[in-house]
Amino acid sequence: MFEKLYSKINLDLVERSYPIYIGENLLNQSKIIEEEINKRQVVIVTNEVVSPLYSDLLTSICDSNNSEYLLIVLPDGEKNKSISVLVTIFDQMIEKNINRDAVLIALGGGVIGDMAGFAASCYQRGIDFLQIPTTLLSQVDSSVGGKTAVNHKFGKNMIGAFYQPKKVIIDIKTLDTLPDREFVSGIAEIIKYGCIKDRNFFDWIELNIQELLARSPSKLADAIKRSCEIKAEVVALDETESGYRAILNFGHTFGHAIETGLGYGEWLHGEAVGCGMVMASKLSSAVCLLNSTDEQRIKNLINTAGLPVSWPNWDPKRYFGLMSNDKKVKNKLIRYVLLKKIGESTLIPVDDDVVSSALFGVKH
Amino acid sequence: MFEKLYSKINLDLVERSYPIYIGENLLNQSKIIEEEINKRQVVIVTNEVVSPLYSDLLTSICDSNNSEYLLIVLPDGEKNKSISVLVTIFDQMIEKNINRDAVLIALGGGVIGDMAGFAASCYQRGIDFLQIPTTLLSQVDSSVGGKTAVNHKFGKNMIGAFYQPKKVIIDIKTLDTLPDREFVSGIAEIIKYGCIKDRNFFDWIELNIQELLARSPSKLADAIKRSCEIKAEVVALDETESGYRAILNFGHTFGHAIETGLGYGEWLHGEAVGCGMVMASKLSSAVCLLNSTDEQRIKNLINTAGLPVSWPNWDPKRYFGLMSNDKKVKNKLIRYVLLKKIGESTLIPVDDDVVSSALFGVKH
Repeated sequence: MFEKLYSKINLDLVERSYPIYIGENLLNQSKIIEEEINKRQVVIVTNEVVSPLYSDLLTSICDSNNSEYLLIVLPDGEKNKSISVLVTIFDQMIEKNINRDAVLIALGGGVIGDMAGFAASCYQRGIDFLQIPTTLLSQVDSSVGGKTAVNHKFGKNMIGAFYQPKKVIIDIKTLDTLPDREFVSGIAEIIKYGCIKDRNFFDWIELNIQELLARSPSKLADAIKRSCEIKAEVVALDETESGYRAILNFGHTFGHAIETGLGYGEWLHGEAVGCGMVMASKLSSAVCLLNSTDEQRIKNLINTAGLPVSWPNWDPKRYFGLMSNDKKVKNKLIRYVLLKKIGESTLIPVDDDVVSSALFGVKH
Repeated sequence: MFEKLYSKINLDLVERSYPIYIGENLLNQSKIIEEEINKRQVVIVTNEVVSPLYSDLLTSICDSNNSEYLLIVLPDGEKNKSISVLVTIFDQMIEKNINRDAVLIALGGGVIGDMAGFAASCYQRGIDFLQIPTTLLSQVDSSVGGKTAVNHKFGKNMIGAFYQPKKVIIDIKTLDTLPDREFVSGIAEIIKYGCIKDRNFFDWIELNIQELLARSPSKLADAIKRSCEIKAEVVALDETESGYRAILNFGHTFGHAIETGLGYGEWLHGEAVGCGMVMASKLSSAVCLLNSTDEQRIKNLINTAGLPVSWPNWDPKRYFGLMSNDKKVKNKLIRYVLLKKIGESTLIPVDDDVVSSALFGVKH
């Protein structure tokens, strides 16, 4: 159970930087966590699945540091990433007199990270927080970059804040307990980074996909590191998504529509994004001259990973209705992240008619 | 109805600055507002009292600029500064497909400004907003400095964000319609600025208190200007209240306890703060050697303004219980903003026993 630190990446922002630690058994190695909680009030926000596995590691660090802690265990699943569940976090924190010098630890997947991070951002107008992501998806995506949010019944991540953690601590040992379907969902985001910004990384993923799927620790550590590096580079250039950061949403405009349309949790986020990337690639070949070899490679890799490549057969109007709430909508035109080639992306508005004929076979 | 601009103050923050306009009939003068809303979606958040008086001025600017607008009229009063009312703002915005490029205008007093500002901060992780405060209290205090929040049943302003408006537009003409009790509540915060940071300003208020109470436009413009200047200076030094900014809370620790204990809305905020300043002054003389002349001058001025100077006769334990949720609590010690003299303030922790014997006549 000795800890092994593979890498430490810095996310450099205008006002401050913070480290992302990637390693094995980091939750057993208390130093990285210990120095953050020392004698402060600690709020651990986790869910009913993760809590039995890893809460004890954190509470024992608190005990040995004389830190008073509050353990908040939420119901699992995307459908609980809601304002009403958020309010139960506030209720418990206020009831325990948690003050502004406390530190909140988000222990779990993306749902926990997003919701607990948002709670930290607005509890008494903001307290410190740490991200300890325990799913592959959250390790390569949502835990890094400071996006926090809850869903609204009419749209995903509609209510939230840009709020950066003090540290991100990625212990790939936590992936041992991750169900296959959730693991593969994380692979979708890793593929995304190759698509949008790094053709060599895409090549590497293609080459190593079987070892990744077999959960090789060293391959996973490499894939997570490169994913976090790319995310950190993009976020550093555009913390609040005024433009460039939007490329991280490749596959997400369609993906969110599918998630919302099917009801949260029917498809996992990574599954919807995987399928959304296939859709966005097809649209890219129609609009951005993405060549058919690249389009096919993306579809094949997503398929090999075990992610869906066929989208729900809905009326195009349904898709456009679902996408009209997307945060990238500008002047009523839906903007899409599209690829010129693997490794090069762009954000452009596309007319509904063009999307219809490219993806839904509707002629105008 | 010609507009008259008395002054323009800049609030200089690290990342950006924004202007505070003070004048008469600024709502009729569309330029300052017009340049912000031009062709964007506009969300006007106001309440049932203010809306009939001033909404038309804003909606007509929207109409003449071809800006689509959504008018959200909330119930009046501090008790509606709640998460559940906040959610109704989100619901209406999402239902109307308000996107991230929209601008939100907070038109009303502190409750509207705080709640609408918080809504703007977290709708799609943040959209632009303008503060148009229509009460004296909000003109000199809550509209400036970026504090936004809603209340929790166990504590005031417990859930919120630091989020700065693009502009603050103070039209003192809107004070014409303000009821006396609310007007006087605003005077409390003006007195506060003299107490914490500017002895000359305190002298000036003493000298001009009758004209201020008679709502002389030029005196009001001067008082608002100096109040906003002091607030801007303090906020520029400490945007997120890591320390110095806390001096703006002179009288507020006790004031919030009274507001919460009586139930929001029983006493107006400024009334509770007025009384809280009398309490803090008395504690200051016990702890910080505030001399009795200064203590008496503060009490007299608050009394002359028509604000309460006697506090609810509760068991001290009740006060401490109510104050233990205060955001200035550190290591379980309640910290108070106290005065060394009129114009010079400090933030220090005081033992409950000391507070009890100074204010509640309880010996230990």
